[in-house]
Amino acid sequence: MEEKNQYLKEITPMDEDFSQWYIDTILKAELADYSTVRGCIVFRPYGYAIWENMQQLLDRRFKETGHKNAYFPLFIPESLLQKEAEHVEGFAPEVAWVTHGGSDELVERLAVRPTSETIICSMYSKWIKSWRDLPVLINQWANVVRWEKSTRPFLRTSEFLWQEGHTAHRTEEEAEEETLRMLEVYRDFVETELAIPVIKGRKTENEKFAGALRTYTIEALMKDGKALQAGTSHNLGQHFAKVFDIQYLDTDGQLKYVWQTSWGVSTRLIGALIMVHGDNKGLKIPPRIAPVQAIIIPIPGQESEKVFEKAKELSAGLNSRFRVEVDFNDEKTPGWKFSEYEMKGVPLRIEIGPRDVKNDQVVLVRRDTGEKMVISQDALDVKIGEVLEDIQRNMFTQARAFVEKNTREVHSFDEFKETIENKKGFVKANWCGSTECELAIKDETMATIRCIPFEGSEPDGGCVHCGNRATKKVIFARSY
Amino acid sequence: MEEKNQYLKEITPMDEDFSQWYIDTILKAELADYSTVRGCIVFRPYGYAIWENMQQLLDRRFKETGHKNAYFPLFIPESLLQKEAEHVEGFAPEVAWVTHGGSDELVERLAVRPTSETIICSMYSKWIKSWRDLPVLINQWANVVRWEKSTRPFLRTSEFLWQEGHTAHRTEEEAEEETLRMLEVYRDFVETELAIPVIKGRKTENEKFAGALRTYTIEALMKDGKALQAGTSHNLGQHFAKVFDIQYLDTDGQLKYVWQTSWGVSTRLIGALIMVHGDNKGLKIPPRIAPVQAIIIPIPGQESEKVFEKAKELSAGLNSRFRVEVDFNDEKTPGWKFSEYEMKGVPLRIEIGPRDVKNDQVVLVRRDTGEKMVISQDALDVKIGEVLEDIQRNMFTQARAFVEKNTREVHSFDEFKETIENKKGFVKANWCGSTECELAIKDETMATIRCIPFEGSEPDGGCVHCGNRATKKVIFARSY
Ligand SMILES: [Zn+2]
Ligand SMILES: [Zn+2]
Repeated sequence: MEEKNQYLKEITPMDEDFSQWYIDTILKAELADYSTVRGCIVFRPYGYAIWENMQQLLDRRFKETGHKNAYFPLFIPESLLQKEAEHVEGFAPEVAWVTHGGSDELVERLAVRPTSETIICSMYSKWIKSWRDLPVLINQWANVVRWEKSTRPFLRTSEFLWQEGHTAHRTEEEAEEETLRMLEVYRDFVETELAIPVIKGRKTENEKFAGALRTYTIEALMKDGKALQAGTSHNLGQHFAKVFDIQYLDTDGQLKYVWQTSWGVSTRLIGALIMVHGDNKGLKIPPRIAPVQAIIIPIPGQESEKVFEKAKELSAGLNSRFRVEVDFNDEKTPGWKFSEYEMKGVPLRIEIGPRDVKNDQVVLVRRDTGEKMVISQDALDVKIGEVLEDIQRNMFTQARAFVEKNTREVHSFDEFKETIENKKGFVKANWCGSTECELAIKDETMATIRCIPFEGSEPDGGCVHCGNRATKKVIFARSY
Repeated sequence: MEEKNQYLKEITPMDEDFSQWYIDTILKAELADYSTVRGCIVFRPYGYAIWENMQQLLDRRFKETGHKNAYFPLFIPESLLQKEAEHVEGFAPEVAWVTHGGSDELVERLAVRPTSETIICSMYSKWIKSWRDLPVLINQWANVVRWEKSTRPFLRTSEFLWQEGHTAHRTEEEAEEETLRMLEVYRDFVETELAIPVIKGRKTENEKFAGALRTYTIEALMKDGKALQAGTSHNLGQHFAKVFDIQYLDTDGQLKYVWQTSWGVSTRLIGALIMVHGDNKGLKIPPRIAPVQAIIIPIPGQESEKVFEKAKELSAGLNSRFRVEVDFNDEKTPGWKFSEYEMKGVPLRIEIGPRDVKNDQVVLVRRDTGEKMVISQDALDVKIGEVLEDIQRNMFTQARAFVEKNTREVHSFDEFKETIENKKGFVKANWCGSTECELAIKDETMATIRCIPFEGSEPDGGCVHCGNRATKKVIFARSY
């Protein structure tokens, strides 16, 4: 029974051990659990509900920008995966291989998809014939597998869930527009719905996607000062089109290769959500994405029946506009429940006791500020809407203030090392543009270039590492 | 280029070759395509949109009956799969095995899930401790893999998409209630949304799910007279609970094993949809599930600009209530488009030409009956709602009439064989209840017992095969 109860232990304070705080929070809030399969987690209902909300809010954005969903096979024949040289080099080391079907050995090994460019390109080469077939704007919601050596729930697991968009276009400009459009969709989604501020930028050659021409990224900052890549959008150029022979007959009668993009976000975003907003009490979930936006806790006193009835009535009235639940459990005290739902990050608590029933009121308590408000039941509907919006806004503002406070410019390599090591966060520094310097810095400090930001990348001094002329001011950090 | 164009060929008539009609329709309507992976299809956007609509309508029903979604790992360690003897025997022959991660051989082979009872039970044994933890009502939307020898799009593919519900209960009665509740959810969904009439019943011991106590099914009849199992719901009893040690402390202080259920429907339902409603022109999709409920086809004539403008305006006005598209392609004639959208099974066509613009009217054409109606544009919104409902109703009525016409009672084995061979359809016959007779009949006629129906299973004569006392009147058919 030891093991059975391990997830009931208290949450380790953040400052004491951030990694342990992260794991404790996930297990105690029942977002996920370890499975018997190495590196694979189980998404429990509370964690999966967050993913469902994310899916819904993203999917709407994809469809509004003209994309349609499709589904491609889980398995990719080895020969197909090997067609694009950089791509296979990037992914082969972490592929899970299927070698047998039933008791028969397969003639060719099948990769469990680590990403779907190759299988999708093999279909696009069949489907695309004329300029009239373009653009192709397809997205897929799927599970993918990358056989990781060390894993951490949501952030790095052997199997994870994601969406991957794959588009084909007539011109380079159109592909670049699409790449940036989807990066902006991600920024808007992550900032608006998850209340996570991000920096938009371009990845260096060394950090770009295996097989891409250019990779763009949105980078977020966790509370321990480490960066997390929250979404990427790739301009694939014609690399895959040439290898997979995806050609179209243009209006001028010429056969031309298409220009492609791919872009994705994954269940890592749940990890980001935890580490950007959480505190020592546990989770703090932004209202727009919260599975439960408000929890009603009856405080029965001497008149449990009346209180329960009113709680039920209020919940029924609110449920068309908000995600509201009532906790009727009579084995737990109200005080226990207060901590429980704070730990689960429910944005708003609604307390109702006998006196509240008598006075037609309730007590609202905000998870983000702890503020208590006595509200008349008549005004509840309107008030909850306002308060939830205010919580959403406040959580974003707080997170943005944290990023601002933890973004530092440095002008010498000593300062760089000292900042990365002791202050952490984003470090802005001039860079000469050479991969040698980039790798040497990574070697010495474990910090990578997170991105060449769209804003503020004009250099104002020599390369922070070699002192040569800098071409860009870029953002470094240690990262997940 | 030969291969590139193969899916543009005409549709083989149903009577000539039903199987070829089925494949032609799928490829031409762009529901799916063959992939480079043996036995795996690609769900193209039009086919996947049908699945998305099914998911939405089912998911709502699952949540209304108290279920929550979760997600369990794709991989199942071999030792876990082997725990329940009947279960592994049923699934092992068709498991795809992962043996390598990157370049390393795995210590233990991993099954790509053929179904998730075992991995889910391993978690339930960790999560369930007290009667207060029950019932556990979880559903999962996932891909599953069964390495099939011969495959057919949607009906039998190596990988397919489905949902699998997995619940745990305190008592046998509760588990049985849940099993039947979900069977009824399936019946309601399939009949109401897909307009496919089904027969509810119980599977024989020989046909039940590997590891179940009892399996219930809904059976549908395709236009070629073959049956298709459209959904199953299993009462798992305590088989898995005992093997995986899923015990709870009851109110009486005793440790007891839980009672479990599992239930699922899959992308096979798309196959059923095609084969129940389709005709020689192609697909016929019931309005409630159709990705496009009405297609507006402008007939530009001399005043293309006015016509296009009005078409756009009408579409914008209808889009909040209906799924409406306009086909502006100026390369195809209206006549070509009429056939195209009939082939794609769009329930309603809206034609608009210069005279219609002038007269504030449009022409509506029903896919199910071919009926044409001239409708004033003011009344369009209301009229479309009515007509779509009528199409849905009519398609169900027609499908039900087909089942009634093709359900026959027989009282001798000669009559049985003659009916199965020449008339096809559902054959009702008395059965002694022995597996020997069941298997002998299957051997001689390729017909299986589809179910022991909930209604009308009282025998009225001797077993159709051995002549001994019959215990039930059951439903036989050849099936997919
Ligand atoms: Zn340098
Ligand atoms: Zn018999």
